[in-house]
Amino acid sequence: MNKEKIPYKIYLNEDEMPKAWYNLRADMKQKPAPLLNPGTLQPMKAEELSGVFCEELIRQELDDNTAFFEIPEEIHNFYKMYRPSPLVRAYCLEEKLQTPARIYYKFEGNNTSGSHKLNSAIAQAYYAKKQGLKGVTTETGAGQWGTALSMACSYFGLDCKVYMVKCSYEQKPFRREVMRTYGASVTPSPSMETEVGKKILAEHPGTTGSLGCAISEAVEKAVSSEGYRYVLGSVLNQVLLHQSIIGLETKAALDKYGVKPDVIIGCAGGGSNLGGLIAPFMGEKLRGEADYRIVAVEPASCPSFTRGVYAYDFCDTGMVCPLSKMYTLGSGFIPSASHAGGLRYHGMSSTLSELYHQGLMEAVSVKQTEVFEAAEYFARIEGILPAPESSHAIRAAIDEAVRCKETGEEKTIIFGLTGTGYFDMVAYGKFHDGEMNDYIPTDEELAASCAGLPKVE
Amino acid sequence: MNKEKIPYKIYLNEDEMPKAWYNLRADMKQKPAPLLNPGTLQPMKAEELSGVFCEELIRQELDDNTAFFEIPEEIHNFYKMYRPSPLVRAYCLEEKLQTPARIYYKFEGNNTSGSHKLNSAIAQAYYAKKQGLKGVTTETGAGQWGTALSMACSYFGLDCKVYMVKCSYEQKPFRREVMRTYGASVTPSPSMETEVGKKILAEHPGTTGSLGCAISEAVEKAVSSEGYRYVLGSVLNQVLLHQSIIGLETKAALDKYGVKPDVIIGCAGGGSNLGGLIAPFMGEKLRGEADYRIVAVEPASCPSFTRGVYAYDFCDTGMVCPLSKMYTLGSGFIPSASHAGGLRYHGMSSTLSELYHQGLMEAVSVKQTEVFEAAEYFARIEGILPAPESSHAIRAAIDEAVRCKETGEEKTIIFGLTGTGYFDMVAYGKFHDGEMNDYIPTDEELAASCAGLPKVE
Repeated sequence: MNKEKIPYKIYLNEDEMPKAWYNLRADMKQKPAPLLNPGTLQPMKAEELSGVFCEELIRQELDDNTAFFEIPEEIHNFYKMYRPSPLVRAYCLEEKLQTPARIYYKFEGNNTSGSHKLNSAIAQAYYAKKQGLKGVTTETGAGQWGTALSMACSYFGLDCKVYMVKCSYEQKPFRREVMRTYGASVTPSPSMETEVGKKILAEHPGTTGSLGCAISEAVEKAVSSEGYRYVLGSVLNQVLLHQSIIGLETKAALDKYGVKPDVIIGCAGGGSNLGGLIAPFMGEKLRGEADYRIVAVEPASCPSFTRGVYAYDFCDTGMVCPLSKMYTLGSGFIPSASHAGGLRYHGMSSTLSELYHQGLMEAVSVKQTEVFEAAEYFARIEGILPAPESSHAIRAAIDEAVRCKETGEEKTIIFGLTGTGYFDMVAYGKFHDGEMNDYIPTDEELAASCAGLPKVE
Repeated sequence: MNKEKIPYKIYLNEDEMPKAWYNLRADMKQKPAPLLNPGTLQPMKAEELSGVFCEELIRQELDDNTAFFEIPEEIHNFYKMYRPSPLVRAYCLEEKLQTPARIYYKFEGNNTSGSHKLNSAIAQAYYAKKQGLKGVTTETGAGQWGTALSMACSYFGLDCKVYMVKCSYEQKPFRREVMRTYGASVTPSPSMETEVGKKILAEHPGTTGSLGCAISEAVEKAVSSEGYRYVLGSVLNQVLLHQSIIGLETKAALDKYGVKPDVIIGCAGGGSNLGGLIAPFMGEKLRGEADYRIVAVEPASCPSFTRGVYAYDFCDTGMVCPLSKMYTLGSGFIPSASHAGGLRYHGMSSTLSELYHQGLMEAVSVKQTEVFEAAEYFARIEGILPAPESSHAIRAAIDEAVRCKETGEEKTIIFGLTGTGYFDMVAYGKFHDGEMNDYIPTDEELAASCAGLPKVE
């Protein structure tokens, strides 16, 4: 098994870091369906998006032909502060599981935002600054995206206004303080600061919020404020583009040691980590150069891939955003207050949705307590305290390694460890105290939340 | 300035990691004064310590002649999970300060304990396991040592009982949950679980505790429990020995690029980080091979170097531990409830004390709000959210770099960034809200706390 030859952590040198992001869509024959204008139901044009997004980001969003986008020097320099991130060989976990499988994880938690989100935040802040904007608005679920964006805005001297999903705001009071340290303002969502927030609160008093609500508020705030644009930490093509650095580094590190993965596993909320991690591997698969099993892991409480429908839907609850064709539970779906705030999104990246629809990747859903069991197990063995979101991938990777033990297969498993759980200790506490629920939506609930899907085609 | 040649982060390869710890005392002509038996006032013998400490650790504690101790393979393998740690070139900070100085920091926060403490915790747990013990007891201030020890004990399957200084226990509720995730039990100190705890509570009702109190409780618990020993995360020679890996890696990384530091700066509570960081550099200084300015930075609220006396004193408040000759504020000194829990110790490593006494290093003290100003400034520029303890070194490093700007000197400054501040957000919040105090003990208070020093010589 050559265990000795591969180090515990593979670090690329700075000069081995990717110089360009990879745009997965360029290699897709059947492209993801375009965003539609919610009024005309026609594909969105760049000029229609320019009130919401920065110009360069719109160009990236709409371009499904250019395979590589050069990483600007300013962004590359910022990346050097926390990248390349380590690709870790999970020797201890392999030994504990007594599995013949070889397990690797790409660890994105070694930066203050605590997750991979910084990869796109710094890019989006850079383009906003370059366009001469005053600031940006956004939403955040678990708080990782908000933290990442505050760091990025602080670096470029931009104002940062964050709407934080209320249940995370309450579960993670320290997250707000981190964002404040970086100079951001944070509002629990839904709020009374926006028209859409007021409307949602009137219809659902006492709601703990959702990413969909918070997006609506942040978009409204951006379009109604001079010199502001909206930025989003997941779902969008531009985000997957920036996050491709995860997969590109992973592939470069594996190539250095001649390792070829069999299975690639990532947690999936809106798809930013998964899309980034799998990008170059899926690219090879699309070009017929290699084959890999690619597995999305989602919470059973918010199962867009495994129980959603593939249809055009609004990206937000307030229905102010464009329509995207994706696996969705309906933009009105409000997930239970689970502890993986970053995975509580009703939809999924349109690119990943199209790939899943074409059968190029698989999806599984896992229950919350199973996820925390895996998280604690992993923490005790590999040392890293994982975020609940990341722990979905850990659960699936462990399950896969256990199957390898049963079958004797020496598979190489790669998974994305997107971040750390330092701000999730309330959730860990509930798990320890046996107070964690495993709520799963019923078929009736999903049918109801999908009933209002917009009629397209 | 050759800015281009040196990467943002210098990572050693695994095979460049130190294979042995370096024992600074071997190169000291005037050795640190020995520990004394509090009853006989004679130097402690190994057999007298064997009820409290593990045998191999006693050997390391008492040996001031052996220069190198080989790192056992099991420990080396564990190190590989989070080491080598990066030596970061603070390019962004240099640019922001417009200083001609070159600033580097050794970042020890990229592991779940959030600090350098894990370097010694894993060694101490290993030797306890090797001796066939059931478990260990300890105290923790900021919670970093306790977290580190729980991780280490979990790895080797040892029971772990932690007495946590009450003010930190209350300020950092999530720390307890992290330790629990790793299977440790945590008690706020002083507690009613021990005789010494009861006594301290009777004399000082409402006290927020101190490291000195918590040590007494942990020692009492260890000696009164079958199959348990006490372990300590700072102050002791054995701890400085294990922490020498910080300095050895730092030196190896600098040597790789031919960089020679002018000033080496570290925060100092009990001295574990500082002693580890400076070890090989001080070694060169002691052997007359090189010269460096070495600066200890301590809180103005707990100024053992800058305002303490050099004398034999108890290591703990309950006076159950051996006497150590050190810079001390008196074992009865109870520092104000500052937010750098890890620096609230009345004494200082006897090795560092002796080196300071010989004029081989300097010390400065800094006020709490100045420290948090530096912490926030650093976070916004370098991305990393530092622990309050570590931020003492940041403050001094920034001050030094600003002086270089004034004088035009191109000094090379190295400082130790011991850990992250994720569990210190209550403190950051108080800083943001202007509710942070800068309490400094009066001369009268210090005279009173030193009045009870034991009479030796």
